[in-house]
Amino acid sequence: MKRPTFAQPIEEHLNTFNRTLPQRVRSHVPLLNVVLRYLLHNRGKQLRPMLVFASAGACGTITERTHIGAAMVELLHTATLVHDDVVDQAPLRRGIASINAIWKNKIAVLVGDFLLARGLLLAVEHGEFDALRVTATAVRRMSEGELLQVQRWRKRNVDEGTYLRIISDKTAALIAACCHIGAISAGADQSLQQRLATFGEHLGMAFQIRDDVLDYISRSSILGKPTAHDIREGKMTLPLLRALANAPDYEANAIRTLMQSSARKNGGADRIVAFVKRYSGIESAMATAAHHVDQAIAQLDEFPPTEFRALLISIARYTIERTK
Amino acid sequence: MKRPTFAQPIEEHLNTFNRTLPQRVRSHVPLLNVVLRYLLHNRGKQLRPMLVFASAGACGTITERTHIGAAMVELLHTATLVHDDVVDQAPLRRGIASINAIWKNKIAVLVGDFLLARGLLLAVEHGEFDALRVTATAVRRMSEGELLQVQRWRKRNVDEGTYLRIISDKTAALIAACCHIGAISAGADQSLQQRLATFGEHLGMAFQIRDDVLDYISRSSILGKPTAHDIREGKMTLPLLRALANAPDYEANAIRTLMQSSARKNGGADRIVAFVKRYSGIESAMATAAHHVDQAIAQLDEFPPTEFRALLISIARYTIERTK
Repeated sequence: MKRPTFAQPIEEHLNTFNRTLPQRVRSHVPLLNVVLRYLLHNRGKQLRPMLVFASAGACGTITERTHIGAAMVELLHTATLVHDDVVDQAPLRRGIASINAIWKNKIAVLVGDFLLARGLLLAVEHGEFDALRVTATAVRRMSEGELLQVQRWRKRNVDEGTYLRIISDKTAALIAACCHIGAISAGADQSLQQRLATFGEHLGMAFQIRDDVLDYISRSSILGKPTAHDIREGKMTLPLLRALANAPDYEANAIRTLMQSSARKNGGADRIVAFVKRYSGIESAMATAAHHVDQAIAQLDEFPPTEFRALLISIARYTIERTK
Repeated sequence: MKRPTFAQPIEEHLNTFNRTLPQRVRSHVPLLNVVLRYLLHNRGKQLRPMLVFASAGACGTITERTHIGAAMVELLHTATLVHDDVVDQAPLRRGIASINAIWKNKIAVLVGDFLLARGLLLAVEHGEFDALRVTATAVRRMSEGELLQVQRWRKRNVDEGTYLRIISDKTAALIAACCHIGAISAGADQSLQQRLATFGEHLGMAFQIRDDVLDYISRSSILGKPTAHDIREGKMTLPLLRALANAPDYEANAIRTLMQSSARKNGGADRIVAFVKRYSGIESAMATAAHHVDQAIAQLDEFPPTEFRALLISIARYTIERTK
């Protein structure tokens, strides 16, 4: 995937990072190396390592510790993607076949475990115990967020408070950890660390809300997955929750009933998408995402006006402007 | 499951351990607490926490650090069992329904991830970085061992060297970690730590070989799983490898062909069991297990003759005498 042009200030670091990562995870098990090569070859936007480097830069210096931190979060993020695809029985990831689709669930579960352990070991080996605490906490929150999501969405009883809790745990926790770790790696004081962690938390909320909005407005060819996938899965995300709140009761109840029925998987999905659009679910959700971006950027006030601070602001804006 | 009577010297510690463990893993996600309660209620033999306590005792003192270490390994072990049952699509664990059977793979994968993160966090929270390095390494080796097993057993091209490598990684690594962590928690010097780690490595090898032998000689009602399960799965374990080495070529080749065919899942399994018994596969594998037990016990020579050292010896002997 092409890197956004605004990543230029950390371009060299990202290139070094991409070159060294495969060496950090090599194993004596041949199959594992094959799967890892496949995974690391098909990288995404690399939002998380970018945030680690940009956060460290904003705190004054990008060091070898920053590279270790970036590798940790990338490994943990990849681990959770591999496990998520098992959880969701997803056939595709970033437009190409998922690990579970090619090598089956068995391998996918084990590769995820290996990557989790490898990511955490990287911190242990380099004595990065603060970074370790931050990431291990993020991993715990991610599994809790996913579990809460599975439980609630199974029963379709998600209100806005639950939705926000879920996305905070499953998405914002790790993005906050990236920024926090970047600050730690630059030797920043507690106050700057906390500001960047809060920046990342808001950014993560905006990121996930935008993801959930894209599910309503993107076409399959762009996103690499079917549009309205969440509706078919019975997932009540913010655009739908807002439309339900805006609509008259009789219409909201009809849509709730439709979400409970299997009809949502076929023709019903189009009806729900139209409902969400008619009752301003998209605009309302995007307003909340934009508010999170504003709150994120406000955290950067005390940082000197460097190219790295500018990069963090660009990333924050990009989060809600992206179309995939 | 009833605790062996020889566990008496650490009985009180195990009781405290079992009382406090559920408190250490509580979550804000209700479903997670339900699954955890189910898991922690249906404990196994608790071999791993027993080894942590006995090893610490053999080094002179059982401390609060020992309890943290025991909780860590129990959480990590439980995590890998939950994931193994997904990998093996196992309907039963310890004679009762597995997590994946009740709550499906989705939940099982996520609960495993939560337990992995929670176990490692326990170490981070208590500043137990040596124990963390030891356990995270064990987790990495376990996933590598399982992956090597999946890859090789899929093609049925396992020789004895590969088999030993697999069981060392998938089983002995964590058992060695238990003993190592017990020593660390007692403040033992490097030499004693290493001796106990080596003790655990040999014990783990003996334990897994005995497990693989039990698959040939146990009845389903005792083991809580079908006998000859490994054959049906196409797994070439030590009893079979030894029988193949002992048998004349023409007979060994016929059995290899049978292992490649789906007939091994039905009538063929009985033929393979009979073959293994006829060519002393059981006795030969058990001799190797006994040798590992001897090597394990030899590591304890330099320890003072306490009840804890005696307990470690009892556990080592029990490992190959157990019938389930």
